[in-house]
Amino acid sequence: MSDSDGDLPVDYRDVVRAAMRLDGVAHRTPIMTSSTLDAMTGAQLFFKCENFQRIGAFKFRGAYNALSRLACGGRASGAIAYSSGNHAQAIALAARLTGLTATIVMPEDAPSVKLAATRGYGAEVVTYDPETTVREELAADLAVERDLHLIPPFDHPDIIAGQGTVARELLQDAGPLDLLLVPCGGGGLLSGCALAARSLSPGCRIVGVEPELGDDATRSFHSGTLCTVQNPATIADGARTSALGKLTYPLVTSLVDDMVTVSDAALVRTMRWVTERMKIVVEPTAVLGAAAVLEGTVDAAGLRVGVVLSGGNVDLQQFATWFDQ
Amino acid sequence: MSDSDGDLPVDYRDVVRAAMRLDGVAHRTPIMTSSTLDAMTGAQLFFKCENFQRIGAFKFRGAYNALSRLACGGRASGAIAYSSGNHAQAIALAARLTGLTATIVMPEDAPSVKLAATRGYGAEVVTYDPETTVREELAADLAVERDLHLIPPFDHPDIIAGQGTVARELLQDAGPLDLLLVPCGGGGLLSGCALAARSLSPGCRIVGVEPELGDDATRSFHSGTLCTVQNPATIADGARTSALGKLTYPLVTSLVDDMVTVSDAALVRTMRWVTERMKIVVEPTAVLGAAAVLEGTVDAAGLRVGVVLSGGNVDLQQFATWFDQ
Repeated sequence: MSDSDGDLPVDYRDVVRAAMRLDGVAHRTPIMTSSTLDAMTGAQLFFKCENFQRIGAFKFRGAYNALSRLACGGRASGAIAYSSGNHAQAIALAARLTGLTATIVMPEDAPSVKLAATRGYGAEVVTYDPETTVREELAADLAVERDLHLIPPFDHPDIIAGQGTVARELLQDAGPLDLLLVPCGGGGLLSGCALAARSLSPGCRIVGVEPELGDDATRSFHSGTLCTVQNPATIADGARTSALGKLTYPLVTSLVDDMVTVSDAALVRTMRWVTERMKIVVEPTAVLGAAAVLEGTVDAAGLRVGVVLSGGNVDLQQFATWFDQ
Repeated sequence: MSDSDGDLPVDYRDVVRAAMRLDGVAHRTPIMTSSTLDAMTGAQLFFKCENFQRIGAFKFRGAYNALSRLACGGRASGAIAYSSGNHAQAIALAARLTGLTATIVMPEDAPSVKLAATRGYGAEVVTYDPETTVREELAADLAVERDLHLIPPFDHPDIIAGQGTVARELLQDAGPLDLLLVPCGGGGLLSGCALAARSLSPGCRIVGVEPELGDDATRSFHSGTLCTVQNPATIADGARTSALGKLTYPLVTSLVDDMVTVSDAALVRTMRWVTERMKIVVEPTAVLGAAAVLEGTVDAAGLRVGVVLSGGNVDLQQFATWFDQ
């Protein structure tokens, strides 16, 4: 772990600038506590509730940070992104707020509610046949053809800096922490949060949490080689990313203290605790960090622990099946 | 509607005293807003989130207010209550906090999780066979035998005054309102909230909302005669009460502007909106007021509307079945 951010592609000052752009636009989401969950773990838990963020997930922060910079710079008339998840809606809303157009490349078999939600924010949706088309190539072609700026879901300095405002607010509102648990998919949220925590709470141990079935970042972290997974069948759909990125890999390696995994069964048990005890709706990816502490994967007894709950966009039918037994 | 509270068994000063007792003990629950739901209704909606209250429902307020008065007065060594719902857990927790014993009379076929939860707060649970025993009689006998104070679920001045702190906080935090929508079962929450709203926001129209299947209070209100229902099959289990009480009937009649009903199907649709858009867990009874405004039962366009979400104690299996289609 380096002592300095000097050689990294993003640093804490970028997070501070992102926070200024997001001020009054993104929600400053609440921190929730639960005496029951504290008693279960012997820790003092501070849950940062990004399920209450605009579009229902932290992704709005990075998207808005990136697009507001793009809009100010007059560098393009619009943004393009490929995503069937929260990044699509984040880019769509951020574009509307910054006066840009948004084009979202989505598989033609994406759930109709997701297509409708993305169009509902004013984005143009371009669908493709996932059997015959590579979405990255389609998006890159469209970007050139239409003069659009491609905004990747995590491996972009503005995205990483925007996501870092999650931990910045958590530390500002909860005070110094001993341990910070952050879900990890492509590593944008984890990298940004690590940048903020290193600066604001230097003694804080930062741990990224992945699903067992999609453990590429954990293997990369421990082996020192960039590892991949292909379409892991985890219910944590926000962490099915195949690998860390060109930016997030070095950031995670240099700033994070440890990476751990939790099982899908642990995610369901944790969603149950959070739903029944905290009365909030969270998606499976959102409880990766919470599962690590509630299941004892990470020992937190006696510690002040920040837990990022990253989003709350679940399909209610799907949600029902997890608990219908 | 009378201009004065002078002839009522509880008045706003009792609500203020209850607020002082609850200060630092009950949670001052947040008020949530939703731009989506505002756009749907044309109103400005302020949701008072009692699902985040201790024990997961507003019932803690009245129970603690009653038991702290009992404890201070040295009038009894313990409290007794009959309930298989939120009142049981509210009395159990309030007793523990005030140093009293709690005895809860529950049917022997009550869900084991509810029996366990009530015992978990330190209460003694006395079970009975609902085929052969009238719970009110059993509780009254035990109260005499063991020198316990019987705390009814809603028809008690201290309970009503405690529940009134919900609307008091809502009006203090949101400012004056044009309309206040409150779920109605036995009328304790509605009566207390009406007392607070009459004093703090005199122009505010106060509307109580019941399930169609359990419409006794609505019929009582409009007919001027106390009406009853027997075990209505509504999913709003907190509003299955057979009738308003000796105290709540005159309070509702004199303080409330209107009573309306909503269907169970409307409750499910509303729970879906609240769950998907606001990312919070609410029980069917909790969304009675929200359903009245979202379904257009009450016209709220252009108004500042307070909506009491009364609790979030749902069984997840049950919750799942409502959305599993």
